[in-house]
Amino acid sequence: MSSRISFNLLHTDGAARRGEIVTRHGTIQTPVFMPVGTLASVKSLTTDQLRQIGPEIILNNTYHLMLRPGVDLIEKLGGVHKFMGWDRAILTDSGGFQLFSLASIRKIREEGVEFRSHIDGSKFFLSPEVSVGIQTRMGVDIAMAFDECPAYGLSHAEVEKSMHLTHRWAKRSLEARTGASALFGIVQGGIHLDLRKQSVEAIAAMDFDGIAIGGVSVGEPKHEMFEVVDFTAPLLPADRPRYLMGVGTPEDLVNGVAAGVDMFDCVMPTRNARNGTLFTSQGKISIKTARFAADDRPLDPNCSCVTCRTVSRAYLRHLYVNGEIAASVYNTIHNVSFYLDLMRSIRQSIASNSFGKFRNEFLSNVAGGEKDS
Amino acid sequence: MSSRISFNLLHTDGAARRGEIVTRHGTIQTPVFMPVGTLASVKSLTTDQLRQIGPEIILNNTYHLMLRPGVDLIEKLGGVHKFMGWDRAILTDSGGFQLFSLASIRKIREEGVEFRSHIDGSKFFLSPEVSVGIQTRMGVDIAMAFDECPAYGLSHAEVEKSMHLTHRWAKRSLEARTGASALFGIVQGGIHLDLRKQSVEAIAAMDFDGIAIGGVSVGEPKHEMFEVVDFTAPLLPADRPRYLMGVGTPEDLVNGVAAGVDMFDCVMPTRNARNGTLFTSQGKISIKTARFAADDRPLDPNCSCVTCRTVSRAYLRHLYVNGEIAASVYNTIHNVSFYLDLMRSIRQSIASNSFGKFRNEFLSNVAGGEKDS
Repeated sequence: MSSRISFNLLHTDGAARRGEIVTRHGTIQTPVFMPVGTLASVKSLTTDQLRQIGPEIILNNTYHLMLRPGVDLIEKLGGVHKFMGWDRAILTDSGGFQLFSLASIRKIREEGVEFRSHIDGSKFFLSPEVSVGIQTRMGVDIAMAFDECPAYGLSHAEVEKSMHLTHRWAKRSLEARTGASALFGIVQGGIHLDLRKQSVEAIAAMDFDGIAIGGVSVGEPKHEMFEVVDFTAPLLPADRPRYLMGVGTPEDLVNGVAAGVDMFDCVMPTRNARNGTLFTSQGKISIKTARFAADDRPLDPNCSCVTCRTVSRAYLRHLYVNGEIAASVYNTIHNVSFYLDLMRSIRQSIASNSFGKFRNEFLSNVAGGEKDS
Repeated sequence: MSSRISFNLLHTDGAARRGEIVTRHGTIQTPVFMPVGTLASVKSLTTDQLRQIGPEIILNNTYHLMLRPGVDLIEKLGGVHKFMGWDRAILTDSGGFQLFSLASIRKIREEGVEFRSHIDGSKFFLSPEVSVGIQTRMGVDIAMAFDECPAYGLSHAEVEKSMHLTHRWAKRSLEARTGASALFGIVQGGIHLDLRKQSVEAIAAMDFDGIAIGGVSVGEPKHEMFEVVDFTAPLLPADRPRYLMGVGTPEDLVNGVAAGVDMFDCVMPTRNARNGTLFTSQGKISIKTARFAADDRPLDPNCSCVTCRTVSRAYLRHLYVNGEIAASVYNTIHNVSFYLDLMRSIRQSIASNSFGKFRNEFLSNVAGGEKDS
């Protein structure tokens, strides 16, 4: 364990783990879901609202922030915590994933990647050293190693070649680690379990503060994703946090925890909120449907968020169908609260050795609700 | 005074009045500014945020709500307070002003107005009885009489004819008053002071719970508006609240209070917020300008709103130029807070007999600041 963060494994229930990560910006109870704050803003929410909702850690995107407003400005303004007025923990990704999914790549070399911004076409360069440098200068609590995320459907040979590049970049990322930011390595290998095993061995042998499973949720069928997760997570060292990147639905979180994962992030609760798709204890609903027009019940009677305490489904539908900005705000408050409440229930069930029961009940409830919506 | 509301005039300082309006949904300290919540939502804010910002009364628009979601639904859901989760006072306009400015008028008759919705062209009808009925069914604390708002630039004869229609509609509005909603009459007469005097006499003779000056801020030059306000406000009965409709800038509020006005409403703080125009103690600023890009100061160092306490001008500019929804939220929190703080300062200065001094200092400060922005 580094002095940058420390991880305490408090309890296990089967493969599910209950722990805590101690950072300079507070202690994070795991398993944890990290809401995504792309441009140093969890979309639709003020930092004050976010604090009231209660996440102990959020994720910001290095790719987006290096383009706008740029790392020089964020550093000059005292770091990304001060920039957004957030005093709890922040994790940033390395920029790799967005670079391959959003930007126009000019050239991938051993040294790094030249690309053009998806905003205005201007040229940028990312490498292990540049990415870790940016994350460190922004003052984040947890930085991610720079990796290559291979597309779904590549051949075994292509994924293997990419994986070895990721391993060399991992070594360079680690050598570039300075200052107070912890650094996590990333396991790649696509859907090929033999490569995943090799990748775990390579990454776990390095002195990372935590290890992520990358390259999932990139278009593969859900059962293939969980083949990878169920195979890979148990191979990871028990004494370091395990992070499943970019995942996922509420069911994915429950299943990820069952595989031994400690950390998750996903745009789903915030993006769905803006599209009027809301998570409830009875499954997903689309708030715009006419059947909610005169429904005076709270969105989710089992939720105690500001949205569910204050207004009805009919009001939320009214705001949404009329394009009111407050619709995004109310919906985001609820969806993020729903994800955090779910993680709280997961943690409690692990602590009381009843996670298996919780998981079974949750998955059958959600499946029942989704049919209805 | 009616049992629906009561008005207590606590103190005067010159023509400026310090009072309170007691409603079923709390007591309103006057002079007061009412933020506008068109569709039962003060745009960009949750009701919870609005409560934290602290207005004692807001305005909702009858025209917009009768179109979407409709009064039947709001009544069925328990009234507009319950609909939006707001337990403080609500005033609604009569629908007249929006009808003449937004809708496509089919026919104005003695009976009322046939019009087509600006949303989907569907047919509606408003009259004194229909408007007061809708407002009463929504359960508002203060309803407004149905009036005709003549366009700026009409002849004396045309405005006079319109005024008499407004007076006949005022009488019918009053006869339609039932239930717990107070009802305010509206003085018309355009920019013609002789008509304004006649209109005050007609409206003040009726048993309204308060009286509004309507038909201002409809395109006339600012000096003509204040000719009307300065002439009309002192003619209004001292024992009832005086409401200047649809006004205005911070300077307008200060000048309106100086003329003896107790109540104001305007979309300016909320609409400007969404356009990045922010009110500060040093005057108006446009947050998108490049000079704020690296400005780590709070938006207004003299403001204690959540926005000014939490984030910098640089961050607000970052959110605005990148189209983040949170920009509207932060900006609206600030602008509404600025307006409410201004009214608080006005009330304090009246109570301490220093409103004249406050007014002089405020107007010279704002004038100085605006040059700079």
